[in-house]
Amino acid sequence: MNAVIGYQGIPGSFSEEALHRYFPNASETKNFRYFEEVFQRLHDCHIDYGILPIENSNTGMIFEVYDCLQSYNLYIVGETYLQVAHHLLGVPGSSLESIEEVYSHPQGFKQSRRFLRSYDTRWQLIPYHNTAISARYVSEQNDPAKAAIASLRCRDIYGLQVLNDNIHDEAQNFTRFIIIGRQLEYDNSADKLSLVYSLPHRVGSLYTSLGVFAERGINLLGLQSRPIQGRPWEWYFYIDLAGSLDDTHVREALDAMGTLTQDLQVLGCYGARPDRLPLES
Amino acid sequence: MNAVIGYQGIPGSFSEEALHRYFPNASETKNFRYFEEVFQRLHDCHIDYGILPIENSNTGMIFEVYDCLQSYNLYIVGETYLQVAHHLLGVPGSSLESIEEVYSHPQGFKQSRRFLRSYDTRWQLIPYHNTAISARYVSEQNDPAKAAIASLRCRDIYGLQVLNDNIHDEAQNFTRFIIIGRQLEYDNSADKLSLVYSLPHRVGSLYTSLGVFAERGINLLGLQSRPIQGRPWEWYFYIDLAGSLDDTHVREALDAMGTLTQDLQVLGCYGARPDRLPLES
Repeated sequence: MNAVIGYQGIPGSFSEEALHRYFPNASETKNFRYFEEVFQRLHDCHIDYGILPIENSNTGMIFEVYDCLQSYNLYIVGETYLQVAHHLLGVPGSSLESIEEVYSHPQGFKQSRRFLRSYDTRWQLIPYHNTAISARYVSEQNDPAKAAIASLRCRDIYGLQVLNDNIHDEAQNFTRFIIIGRQLEYDNSADKLSLVYSLPHRVGSLYTSLGVFAERGINLLGLQSRPIQGRPWEWYFYIDLAGSLDDTHVREALDAMGTLTQDLQVLGCYGARPDRLPLES
Repeated sequence: MNAVIGYQGIPGSFSEEALHRYFPNASETKNFRYFEEVFQRLHDCHIDYGILPIENSNTGMIFEVYDCLQSYNLYIVGETYLQVAHHLLGVPGSSLESIEEVYSHPQGFKQSRRFLRSYDTRWQLIPYHNTAISARYVSEQNDPAKAAIASLRCRDIYGLQVLNDNIHDEAQNFTRFIIIGRQLEYDNSADKLSLVYSLPHRVGSLYTSLGVFAERGINLLGLQSRPIQGRPWEWYFYIDLAGSLDDTHVREALDAMGTLTQDLQVLGCYGARPDRLPLES
């Protein structure tokens, strides 16, 4: 394919890894500094698709991506999963004993808390832009006192060595990525639907809205809420459902939703990765 | 009162400000580096109560605090709100023109995005532990090229001056704080209930659980979900309800919930701040 795919981060980031899994033949990629830039550049036709992490099985949702999904008029056209593994990486010649400073994304620290506790008094943890930028920085500094928490892909790209492998607390750590495009794109293999809506402040309004789907046997795969900017303590509800826009009962449910909420948006209809398992390696 | 109150952060943090509002006569306070330490120290009887931010009207929930509420056997005994205002603070003699580096908590940057965009190319934004530590650091460095995004209380405590006031995007920015204790504490003024539970993977199970309350006219004030550690793509649901453990219909609802979930926890029963408005200044 000749599509241009955008992601946030630098080579070696989890997003770039997910990109090459989902688009194994991607001819051109563009990377951006912020999640929102991926949405902006897609909206402005500088890229054809974007790939973004949206939730992690341990740390939960990625706020910014949910918020952008609501505010940009773009669509989810697919999803993919990546298993997250963290490793302590240093420059050649460094060792666990030489390390004084550890760089990573705050999530890298959070997901490696048990391992890091043993070194609590000796190591300074320095929050950095992301795991890949941390690895690149440690490589550039070429200082045996500095280490990064990052992936094996970063070790390869930035010429680092593993000081301690698999330092993450939870072996079962998956990040779900979404692929976004400018058009609603789905075929007859689509079996997952993502929606966002807000609700009036009324007893049971969320319950009633979920009932629209439950009563039709449509399974709820995910539910998240995010505050509405400028309207304190009002929320957008993001729901994922098992079904396709081609299903009669889904279309009926969406019609019924129209009477409950003014601002229902279909965010996408696409193929769910079965059982939320990671892609085969 | 002679109770010892714990918070996360340093003097000048929003938590410390909320503490002095909620406990205007607090005789002793202890501050900790991590949210979880407040839970630990309360559990270990080193403090009598803790105060923690749990959600913000613009940025949403504070993950760590939700997760600790589930895993520690402690209770919410009260809540309070604080209006968040961000200001750009520098050392005496600094100006908007002299600034090269800005320190703040990532949320401080996120909540001041519009203002910061105008200086995008000139200022380096350096994520730091929190707003108050950023203010203290700028004060200690005494360098007119450094600024912090922090509160007016920080300006006073750390001897800084305001370079630009009210730089936050949303005028309506409130943080909700909870007060935690070791016992369930409520009197007849309690009108809010917080619960957490997980659900079996079954069509409509969340819908059914919310129905237990909706059918009894119990209003849902909040709903959040958080991943269950080590069980990918399963969630704890945190709900806030209007009601008290003294209400017959609430007790009936809790009994009914027992048949739907194995792990229902009452997190607290306490007085809701009316209409989620901030406390009077």
